[in-house]
Amino acid sequence: MKEFPEGTQAVAHAIADAARTAILPHFRASGLVDENKLVQGYDPVTIADRAAEEAMRAILLEERPQDAILGEEFGTRPGTSGWTWVLDPIDGTRGFVSGTPTWGVLIALSNADGPVYGLIDQPYIGERFEGGPGIAEMQGPQGSRELSVKGTTALSDAVVFTTFPEVGSTTDAAAFRRVAARCKLTRYGMDCYAYALLAAGQVDLVIEAGLQPYDIQAPIAVIEAAGGIVTTWTGGKAHNGGTALAASSPELHAAAMALLNGTAG
Amino acid sequence: MKEFPEGTQAVAHAIADAARTAILPHFRASGLVDENKLVQGYDPVTIADRAAEEAMRAILLEERPQDAILGEEFGTRPGTSGWTWVLDPIDGTRGFVSGTPTWGVLIALSNADGPVYGLIDQPYIGERFEGGPGIAEMQGPQGSRELSVKGTTALSDAVVFTTFPEVGSTTDAAAFRRVAARCKLTRYGMDCYAYALLAAGQVDLVIEAGLQPYDIQAPIAVIEAAGGIVTTWTGGKAHNGGTALAASSPELHAAAMALLNGTAG
Repeated sequence: MKEFPEGTQAVAHAIADAARTAILPHFRASGLVDENKLVQGYDPVTIADRAAEEAMRAILLEERPQDAILGEEFGTRPGTSGWTWVLDPIDGTRGFVSGTPTWGVLIALSNADGPVYGLIDQPYIGERFEGGPGIAEMQGPQGSRELSVKGTTALSDAVVFTTFPEVGSTTDAAAFRRVAARCKLTRYGMDCYAYALLAAGQVDLVIEAGLQPYDIQAPIAVIEAAGGIVTTWTGGKAHNGGTALAASSPELHAAAMALLNGTAG
Repeated sequence: MKEFPEGTQAVAHAIADAARTAILPHFRASGLVDENKLVQGYDPVTIADRAAEEAMRAILLEERPQDAILGEEFGTRPGTSGWTWVLDPIDGTRGFVSGTPTWGVLIALSNADGPVYGLIDQPYIGERFEGGPGIAEMQGPQGSRELSVKGTTALSDAVVFTTFPEVGSTTDAAAFRRVAARCKLTRYGMDCYAYALLAAGQVDLVIEAGLQPYDIQAPIAVIEAAGGIVTTWTGGKAHNGGTALAASSPELHAAAMALLNGTAG
């Protein structure tokens, strides 16, 4: 089993809590005041994004000064421990500005081989999905629950998610449609929440392109802990970003990958 | 101002509460057990849909025996008062079976001219959006808040929602794309939650086709109470179903309708 430093979970929850506190006052804030009265240039998502990452970094500097940090907003801070905290304070900014509770705070702890621990937090709903060595759990409005992927093995039984119908390039979008055409149901628009639903046994496939490392590292750790698989579209390690194919079973993963690459029989 | 029978709000909240209680045990239930151990034919969304409408009808028979009922699952019950309760226990069943908290319980009270009062409830998040004579309010995880649409007037500043990229027929989908191409941002997959977000001042347009009366009556009442406009794509009353164009301002409504009908300059 992979191992990770003692106290990681407590630090991760502390920084997720700090991000919630920083972000929530700005979510749906544009609806709180007459738009004409808004201070020129008030951009809730940018302010929330930066405030959350600053709050998370301040805690990490105090609690884990030896660890590196890779954050969406403030870049890389080197470390000496071999561990890196990978932070995306608001993944799904287009969902955020539309008021949909489908964005999330993404936190991963990674070493040179990729993420070992991950946390996906949806502050508005109050849901937190967590995966790592010996950990596969969600907390939400209905209490705690173990995360475990579905056992679907056939594409014809599968529910597939992607954020935009126009996935990546034109070629990428055509590849996605080859998979979607074989699935039971295709749904859009969930941002990082789709990965959380896969880990929670609700959906079978998530297929995306154009990702940054901080977009995918937390989902990888959560989904793997729940028994699922995440790779690039060509089957490589996905933690450096680019394309991602997340699946609830090896059979679905193989079938979807063959269709993405045009090698299906 | 439109009027409605005394006590309507209390009855509506009581039946929404009953629907929550009936539905929530079945939401995400398929992830709670090994699928292979599922009782043959267990269909959480159908069971929840029927149980919720039965619970709502039982309360209405007790509290408002003189009113008619039009429900998605159990059809029409005639009344003598001129008022009809229009019920959709789970709007957005595809969202429900995917675990996304974008489905909702829809309740409207209508007379011959259409809905006078409406309620959209999202039980998992614990959000309730309500509109009628003198009422335009939401309750959610962050407390109560007045519902009021955004003041956007230009399509180039607008966020547009629809549930599926393939809206209605091929002709319908092409019409939708003419509008979407002019908007700032297009998002998918929110089911009835998109109408609630429009009333809450978060998004500007919702465009759908193939609707039943029980899909649209509660959204009409909530959005109108918040200052928005809902018509068919050709500008007629939308409460009998078919197409729906919901807009946060008269300017956006006119611009979107011209594009939908191919009459834009």
